[in-house]
Amino acid sequence: MRMVDIIHKKREGIELSEQEIQYFIEGYTEGSIPDYQVSALLMAVYYKGMSETETAILTKAMVESGETIDLSPIKGHKVDKHSTGGVGDKTTFIVGPLVASVGVPVAKMSGRGLGHTGGTLDKLESIPGFSIEITKEKFIKQVNEKKLAVAGQTGNLAPADKKLYALRDVTATVDSIPLIAGSIMSKKLASGADSIVLDVKTGTGAFMKTIEDSESLAREMVNIGNNLGRQTIAVISDMNQPLGYEVGNANEVREAVEVLQGKNISDLRNLALELAAHMTILAEVFDSYEEAISTLEKNLDNGKAFEVFKTFVEAQGGDVSVIEDLSKLPTSPYYFEIKAESEGYVSAIDAEAIGVAAMYLGAGRATKEDVINHGVGISLKKKIGDPVSIGETLVVLNSETEVPQDSINKVKEAYEITNKPVEKKTLIYKVIK
Amino acid sequence: MRMVDIIHKKREGIELSEQEIQYFIEGYTEGSIPDYQVSALLMAVYYKGMSETETAILTKAMVESGETIDLSPIKGHKVDKHSTGGVGDKTTFIVGPLVASVGVPVAKMSGRGLGHTGGTLDKLESIPGFSIEITKEKFIKQVNEKKLAVAGQTGNLAPADKKLYALRDVTATVDSIPLIAGSIMSKKLASGADSIVLDVKTGTGAFMKTIEDSESLAREMVNIGNNLGRQTIAVISDMNQPLGYEVGNANEVREAVEVLQGKNISDLRNLALELAAHMTILAEVFDSYEEAISTLEKNLDNGKAFEVFKTFVEAQGGDVSVIEDLSKLPTSPYYFEIKAESEGYVSAIDAEAIGVAAMYLGAGRATKEDVINHGVGISLKKKIGDPVSIGETLVVLNSETEVPQDSINKVKEAYEITNKPVEKKTLIYKVIK
Repeated sequence: MRMVDIIHKKREGIELSEQEIQYFIEGYTEGSIPDYQVSALLMAVYYKGMSETETAILTKAMVESGETIDLSPIKGHKVDKHSTGGVGDKTTFIVGPLVASVGVPVAKMSGRGLGHTGGTLDKLESIPGFSIEITKEKFIKQVNEKKLAVAGQTGNLAPADKKLYALRDVTATVDSIPLIAGSIMSKKLASGADSIVLDVKTGTGAFMKTIEDSESLAREMVNIGNNLGRQTIAVISDMNQPLGYEVGNANEVREAVEVLQGKNISDLRNLALELAAHMTILAEVFDSYEEAISTLEKNLDNGKAFEVFKTFVEAQGGDVSVIEDLSKLPTSPYYFEIKAESEGYVSAIDAEAIGVAAMYLGAGRATKEDVINHGVGISLKKKIGDPVSIGETLVVLNSETEVPQDSINKVKEAYEITNKPVEKKTLIYKVIK
Repeated sequence: MRMVDIIHKKREGIELSEQEIQYFIEGYTEGSIPDYQVSALLMAVYYKGMSETETAILTKAMVESGETIDLSPIKGHKVDKHSTGGVGDKTTFIVGPLVASVGVPVAKMSGRGLGHTGGTLDKLESIPGFSIEITKEKFIKQVNEKKLAVAGQTGNLAPADKKLYALRDVTATVDSIPLIAGSIMSKKLASGADSIVLDVKTGTGAFMKTIEDSESLAREMVNIGNNLGRQTIAVISDMNQPLGYEVGNANEVREAVEVLQGKNISDLRNLALELAAHMTILAEVFDSYEEAISTLEKNLDNGKAFEVFKTFVEAQGGDVSVIEDLSKLPTSPYYFEIKAESEGYVSAIDAEAIGVAAMYLGAGRATKEDVINHGVGISLKKKIGDPVSIGETLVVLNSETEVPQDSINKVKEAYEITNKPVEKKTLIYKVIK
């Protein structure tokens, strides 16, 4: 088998065989196939796509290129949740305890990575004392006993994907739906869950800007999961504005806890319920969506999910008093209020710009070396559809130093106000099974 | 400027600017842009093509990546001829002296390379004593005095093209018409001629199998030449069977000399006249095609071209008595005759298969290290359209050892005989100016 023939075949739009895909992934991982052949193949894939079968084989090969996590010592049906990434997305902190509250084990492994705000791990670390460095044994024991644990991802998961992603990034081959789908799913599948619920974001603040692209990506991922023996469901949810009102690390933990305490932040609460419902149905706890939603709503309102969250925080060394009194969460000394300069209705909030503004404050990492500041963040006071009058506060920025001008400008640019009433955004566009 | 943005732009089918193309060729030549980004760009070019302007800029940048040959010390209008490569193509040995016979200086620089038979240099070296290693001074003096010289190509011509070609070869991006055109033309333009006549072969034995593809390639090359200030004409000629009857090194010199001596091997003679006519018109020796052809035919028939050839051979140290008595050219001891096994008409001769058979005999190089045997070769006795009866000789193979079976098989496979009369092949399909 020769790599040049594989490239030629894909270039002509002919489906690659299992042997060919395995040959290429194995050779690339071990270094016998050079970058320059792989990048040519990736560009051909960009134009010619990959069939459902090819994408599943590619994903499987990427999973098999490294270690996989064995969750079998954990009793019960393990369901994982993955979001394609949005601004202000703190659903994990609500979904985790909610699903655990009906007995479904949640064994969450997370990374840090780059982004507008920190990852799940960074956000949790805004709770004083909280540790994500727990042994494998303790992790499994905690999930079995408390139903919820979050740990830093260890092990060499899907190294082929890491190598491919780095190459795609510098060869303009990132935005190929089968390649994106394979990349996400290879990491999820290597993490060992039995079933997967995907939250595919769509809109200006998401990687996929249109519903059509988001749906294509969702279908590809669902197909991969199902083809490789893991039941997978995707929810396509709105990212035309940040989720909820808070962006930052402590800011997002605070808002999530408020929802766990019963506050109705409708988009955040409803998305968490929707994702939790699908997870518990996949775990076979409920037979119907209606039954799932009504029980989960009850567990949110009666504080059961909040109790699970507190137990979880305590088990991982976090200071529970902070969760009970959110004013103890880190904040920063400087505030800046952005006020409306015209009257009307908020018609758009560029989520990506809000994310960048938060990063400028120090909430996220532009490079791996950056240190996150847990106490800085952005609080939106108005969302799409809200009426505003001149001088009313749109956003509050909270910073460690005098609030930087570039951050203020970004937020200002993000807001659009029109003189006619604006409809609220749909939250859930579609569920793909 | 970032290479990833250039790849992205081409991927989207947007025309690249002069700055972008220069940046990429310069960076690739000096090594600051890696292979893996270039191969992704090449694959995008494969799908999206390049405009006439882009192709001309690319070619210019490749020319400027290395040395160029200065032919200005040679008096008169220098016209070069280039063939895209075919089996049995020995027109250079006729065209050169023919054009020189009317006073047009022919300063030919040739390479060796791989192929079914040797290159121009290897073929000339079948004349005992002939040397292609002459100094630049002697080369120029010889062209000025004798109007014809052939030397081995020296100097670092179009190194960007060499690097790109090697990369295309292993990334399935060879067969892109703008890239092929740019590659050929960069070397021709670096060689310094004022005008260029291209012989674009078409058919089973050519790189371009269809008239349409050959015409596209021809047009691209003519556009490049004209855009970069060198008048360029392309003749699209048949390569659905070998040109003439002889394939090999001494074999081809022998057949070319026979034409110079007045023998009418019609396809070879007519193609040589056609190419020479365009060259002399570009050199402004003749005003009309008819005038050119009639003078050139005369110089072929009256032996003037043959005299130029002999003078040229002598000037480069070759034994002229061999040219006067062709039986002195090298041959080999073993012969094998392939005879017709059915009666009818020759309907096809796979030129590529004949070429491969010649290489098996030792006439060409499969790898750079192979040593050429000047005395082996293949003589066709029948060509397309010829009637044959059972037992009649189709081909004679001449070999240094017992004629190898793989070579015999290849030739047998190459011939097709049908029971109905077959039309002769058209020789010249089109002239592109």
